[in-house]
Amino acid sequence: MIKVSILGASGYSGIYLVHALSSRKDVELIHITSQSNAGKPISEVFPSFNKISKTKLINFEKLDEQQIASSSDVVFLCLPHGKSSLIISAILKFNPSIKIIDIGADFRFDKLENYELNYEKHAAPDLNKYFVYGLADIYEDRIRGSQFVSNPGCYPTGALLPLLPLIKAGIINYDYPVIIDSKSGISGAGKSINLAYQFCEAQNSVRAYNIWKHRHLPEIKEKIYNEIFLTDTETGSGSETRSLSLPNKYYMSELLSLSDKYPDVIFTPHIIPVIRGILTTIYIKLNSSIIDNNKIEDIYNNFYKNNPFVVLLENGILPDIKNVIYSNNCHIAFSKNNNYLILVSAIDNLGKGASLQAIQNMNLMFGLSADYEMQDFTPYP
Amino acid sequence: MIKVSILGASGYSGIYLVHALSSRKDVELIHITSQSNAGKPISEVFPSFNKISKTKLINFEKLDEQQIASSSDVVFLCLPHGKSSLIISAILKFNPSIKIIDIGADFRFDKLENYELNYEKHAAPDLNKYFVYGLADIYEDRIRGSQFVSNPGCYPTGALLPLLPLIKAGIINYDYPVIIDSKSGISGAGKSINLAYQFCEAQNSVRAYNIWKHRHLPEIKEKIYNEIFLTDTETGSGSETRSLSLPNKYYMSELLSLSDKYPDVIFTPHIIPVIRGILTTIYIKLNSSIIDNNKIEDIYNNFYKNNPFVVLLENGILPDIKNVIYSNNCHIAFSKNNNYLILVSAIDNLGKGASLQAIQNMNLMFGLSADYEMQDFTPYP
Amino acid sequence: MIKVSILGASGYSGIYLVHALSSRKDVELIHITSQSNAGKPISEVFPSFNKISKTKLINFEKLDEQQIASSSDVVFLCLPHGKSSLIISAILKFNPSIKIIDIGADFRFDKLENYELNYEKHAAPDLNKYFVYGLADIYEDRIRGSQFVSNPGCYPTGALLPLLPLIKAGIINYDYPVIIDSKSGISGAGKSINLAYQFCEAQNSVRAYNIWKHRHLPEIKEKIYNEIFLTDTETGSGSETRSLSLPNKYYMSELLSLSDKYPDVIFTPHIIPVIRGILTTIYIKLNSSIIDNNKIEDIYNNFYKNNPFVVLLENGILPDIKNVIYSNNCHIAFSKNNNYLILVSAIDNLGKGASLQAIQNMNLMFGLSADYEMQDFTPYP
Amino acid sequence: MIKVSILGASGYSGIYLVHALSSRKDVELIHITSQSNAGKPISEVFPSFNKISKTKLINFEKLDEQQIASSSDVVFLCLPHGKSSLIISAILKFNPSIKIIDIGADFRFDKLENYELNYEKHAAPDLNKYFVYGLADIYEDRIRGSQFVSNPGCYPTGALLPLLPLIKAGIINYDYPVIIDSKSGISGAGKSINLAYQFCEAQNSVRAYNIWKHRHLPEIKEKIYNEIFLTDTETGSGSETRSLSLPNKYYMSELLSLSDKYPDVIFTPHIIPVIRGILTTIYIKLNSSIIDNNKIEDIYNNFYKNNPFVVLLENGILPDIKNVIYSNNCHIAFSKNNNYLILVSAIDNLGKGASLQAIQNMNLMFGLSADYEMQDFTPYP
Repeated sequence: MIKVSILGASGYSGIYLVHALSSRKDVELIHITSQSNAGKPISEVFPSFNKISKTKLINFEKLDEQQIASSSDVVFLCLPHGKSSLIISAILKFNPSIKIIDIGADFRFDKLENYELNYEKHAAPDLNKYFVYGLADIYEDRIRGSQFVSNPGCYPTGALLPLLPLIKAGIINYDYPVIIDSKSGISGAGKSINLAYQFCEAQNSVRAYNIWKHRHLPEIKEKIYNEIFLTDTETGSGSETRSLSLPNKYYMSELLSLSDKYPDVIFTPHIIPVIRGILTTIYIKLNSSIIDNNKIEDIYNNFYKNNPFVVLLENGILPDIKNVIYSNNCHIAFSKNNNYLILVSAIDNLGKGASLQAIQNMNLMFGLSADYEMQDFTPYP
Repeated sequence: MIKVSILGASGYSGIYLVHALSSRKDVELIHITSQSNAGKPISEVFPSFNKISKTKLINFEKLDEQQIASSSDVVFLCLPHGKSSLIISAILKFNPSIKIIDIGADFRFDKLENYELNYEKHAAPDLNKYFVYGLADIYEDRIRGSQFVSNPGCYPTGALLPLLPLIKAGIINYDYPVIIDSKSGISGAGKSINLAYQFCEAQNSVRAYNIWKHRHLPEIKEKIYNEIFLTDTETGSGSETRSLSLPNKYYMSELLSLSDKYPDVIFTPHIIPVIRGILTTIYIKLNSSIIDNNKIEDIYNNFYKNNPFVVLLENGILPDIKNVIYSNNCHIAFSKNNNYLILVSAIDNLGKGASLQAIQNMNLMFGLSADYEMQDFTPYP
Repeated sequence: MIKVSILGASGYSGIYLVHALSSRKDVELIHITSQSNAGKPISEVFPSFNKISKTKLINFEKLDEQQIASSSDVVFLCLPHGKSSLIISAILKFNPSIKIIDIGADFRFDKLENYELNYEKHAAPDLNKYFVYGLADIYEDRIRGSQFVSNPGCYPTGALLPLLPLIKAGIINYDYPVIIDSKSGISGAGKSINLAYQFCEAQNSVRAYNIWKHRHLPEIKEKIYNEIFLTDTETGSGSETRSLSLPNKYYMSELLSLSDKYPDVIFTPHIIPVIRGILTTIYIKLNSSIIDNNKIEDIYNNFYKNNPFVVLLENGILPDIKNVIYSNNCHIAFSKNNNYLILVSAIDNLGKGASLQAIQNMNLMFGLSADYEMQDFTPYP
Repeated sequence: MIKVSILGASGYSGIYLVHALSSRKDVELIHITSQSNAGKPISEVFPSFNKISKTKLINFEKLDEQQIASSSDVVFLCLPHGKSSLIISAILKFNPSIKIIDIGADFRFDKLENYELNYEKHAAPDLNKYFVYGLADIYEDRIRGSQFVSNPGCYPTGALLPLLPLIKAGIINYDYPVIIDSKSGISGAGKSINLAYQFCEAQNSVRAYNIWKHRHLPEIKEKIYNEIFLTDTETGSGSETRSLSLPNKYYMSELLSLSDKYPDVIFTPHIIPVIRGILTTIYIKLNSSIIDNNKIEDIYNNFYKNNPFVVLLENGILPDIKNVIYSNNCHIAFSKNNNYLILVSAIDNLGKGASLQAIQNMNLMFGLSADYEMQDFTPYP
């Protein structure tokens, strides 16, 4: 029985973890915390939690680090950035071997400076080096058995899953920018209340936001640069292998000193009036005109061949967020014209982009298969 | 040139008044006030106000009663209940002949006690008797030339327009309740920020609320009882005439002493995920089995025969809010089975149910035709 | 291992059955038929069916009654009315002991005349008497172990679950009509293509339809009248017991001869722009002023005390379709004022109103608990 | 009085023309044709057309070219491509001086081969040279007084309005592709009935489609190449002037012979679940690092300085389709980082992208100001 506590459990990613884990027979929910709902039963705050799984339900509680540390095997943190660091430090004092999965941003960067430049002064800088970047479909080998996982941002997940296999294959021409145009559902903004996301304001609203400034851009950039560095230095002219033996952390500043080899990365997030999902359209240029569709198919199929969640769509079908919401799946398609390649991916920002990838990480951390007891409940219609 | 000021102009009904009046060549917008946006140009707060009507645009201002009183012919108040009373009192001191149209609830009740029972202690009780209830398609004769108009609530507008002609015709059996089941778009909750109306919470939400407790129920009830009293006492067995010569105010308590003649009125509001519109379904029983469809058609067509806004739909077409949003129209249909009659009406809660009915009232107060310069911009698709 | 075949498996209720049953370890999907998609793999028609449950997936096939009869333990039919009767007759010839769950309307009426009056001449009239009406939360005892179940309509499910306990308790005043005002999502219209349900036509559309004419009205009426008859004749002044020992079929015509004891039933369906869900608001009058809230709570809690799916909400929470979609749950609340009682229920029209209730019926027919392996995936947000 | 006929008047762009023109006092609607609705009054097909403009309403008719030619000053054609050519030929035989505005694609290409390559064999090739490309905010001078105008496609309008001023200014580095990523509402697919656009299929659907293959790509490309050619050859190093004196038609093939000077153009259309609107995000690289924000602002403000419809947003506000729907406005913003420039534009695909731009063209053809009697009814909320 895996004893699980979830901190920040009444937000969108937190309650989704509660929901998804409460049907697991090998999981026991020990503590679920919520500052604003402490003391209330889940079913009062979320009336959908009624009846069928009644016996498993517990109340929201206030956060008590000692209690959580002493009674849990793993803790999921769904907290605003900055908060996680402090709480994790406190928990580790009571239980140094507890497993941690942080859904927030505190430990996503390999290089601390990248975090501090884009967020704020880090509250637990010494811990950063212990965290593995939990892009579970790419870094499975590193995550398996690790104690600390930092769950990736939603946009980076949607961008990196289609991009990294091609980067590792060394087929991209870095004289041209990598352009990432993402369209996200509104739940990406979290459960906080905001005039712009009131129904009447949002239903007809489609817009770009945070151009050049979104904090997921440096995250994407760091991970891309890491892989370029790795591909170039360790595996020569490009490789599709996933058997990585690199240390957990690379440093963008080192990479940047090699910067003429690294492409510009452009990222524009957009808000669209759906609850969930991110569609990502990526524009790249190939470095050779002799790369054909079969070669690209092979790269993806090879890369994700044992992976149950990342699907290269066939028969000309293009990704649609409606086909992946409420799942841990990522659908990918590509379309080539001369040397230009357009990639399209679809994920659920709260599923693959947050809570379900976190559970995939938990599975790996506990030695289970990536898809252990993970079901797909993509609604149709 | 009618000089208009709008108080509370950055809320949903306020900005709609600004929008609808800014294309009128006979109207000049003098002051538009907004506590939160004072000092800003409209186009900064509402980017849709750009370019074409640029020359007419003015800034939001702080409220200055004296300035408004001295420079305006008519003032629209789009303020929370309680506030209007105080401000109107202040304005009248500076300009006793200024015309007032109150979109809020302060002066909707004929009988002060009904207001105080359902809202709060009235802040300007002496003014109440001067206000006409601005249900413009029914009480046109009273409104024409009057100085003070209280704009009806949105639900009462949707319920009373189909109901009152039948009440005046005396064909309803009051031994059975009048049941009003209304479905409203989310803008009815105003522009205030609320978790329940965040897009992610609201898009799939359909629910009843405030059962038995909604403040529009006593408003509907008072107006129904007034008309029953009037129909019974003045015009005998029922009449379809609109030439009323009654004083502005009737009193429900007097009516209630006659209460065995008055039906129970039941009203259940529901929230549905559209921005605008109210669909109202009403269940009544007729007092005679010999009333046929032709008779009912005649009652409506006769009653609204000179009215450009209230339409009894033909050819079996049923009202749909999509056909009336962004208009001042009310679509009505009825369906009879034995002695049961189902009425359905559709209005725009912010158009006919608020700002456009207010403009219709302004037209009448200034001696213009009800539909003077009123256009219908119901979007399709 | 329960061997299941699903006919009409690419429609909304059919594919939902495939989806919900494909995660059951005790169920094997043998044949899934689809006229329009025969020969195609599910994942081509429904791209969400990719990867994770890949191994269980099969192709859509043409209908072959003999093959289905010989290889299946139970057959679900998701077909237009009229078609089921013929196909069931054919299947039974090949396998007289096969279990049948008909999602369509063919066998919903106790009395054949009621079907023929509202639909068409019945194609297998002799079979009708063998079918149990599969309102699983009420008629569990009859369904358990039966061979033939007719799954109720979606509107009747939403109306009968809150109504029947009160009817059985004998507390309703039948001198007043029972008024049922239902608001349904668009998937209720099925997967057929229709201009009125194109996104651009439907997103802002809220309307009543088929007033007095919807085929679910006679279905609701027959079931209400059956229960009134039963309550009056067998259990005296009213009872809350669920231990029924009645024959499967009662006859409305017999009931109608007793008609002065039976209330008028009024039903108005509305379409609202959500994909799934039915909210039902019901207006009744109680037959005694001494029935208080506690009494009504007791009736419901007693009636559904062992039921994992029907929930009387507490703490003043009102049903919301967003809290029941993609589940087999029915949420109920009531609100009393004098002798008037307003009931509100929320269900998923395709879940509790179709496919998931059908699986609940399957569980009962196979001797399993009603909630065996039924999970609740109500999305949030 | 301008006598107007509208062919194909019951489709989305046709009925929008009827709606927008029916409030014009200087316009008389003579004939409105609809194959499927001939003989019916507008208000029966579109119930929103009731009451207020009742007196102006006419019936849908069958197409009669002679009648239309002899009674109309101008004809709008809202027909499938291929059809317009034949009908225009027929109409011109009866009335050679009649004005024509074609909303369809038949005459959008300067070079006939471009049409035939992307659509089909042209049915009236001799007429092509007479048509002006009606991108009214750019080519006002050519359109003013012309007899034949071909209304641009919706995507090209959204892409060219922000792009062409920069191309004319000569500041783009054509060694890099011009990448256009467009997000369109569903009404762009027209009123045709399609499973993919049923509400239940479309509400949660976000996807790319027709990558590399959309017919608006060659239209965009031809217009970009024309302007590059013009800018390079006639005005030297780039100019922001709008006083063009070029012949109506340039030829892409000639341009293509100069092809090393012309950039690759990439265009990816996406479908998002809103009724109306196109948001276009464009990625370009500048050809000099000394171009600053002020310079770009100047280019736009200068270029559109007398234009009432195209707005460069200020104060960091980004375009949002909700701020332009139901208007003829185009909102533009740009964001620069090093030499990369991201442009964002928002238009209404049926307004600026079809019917309202067509009316703007009509105004110019009749010597009126571009914004004569054009009002902006962008709904809020």
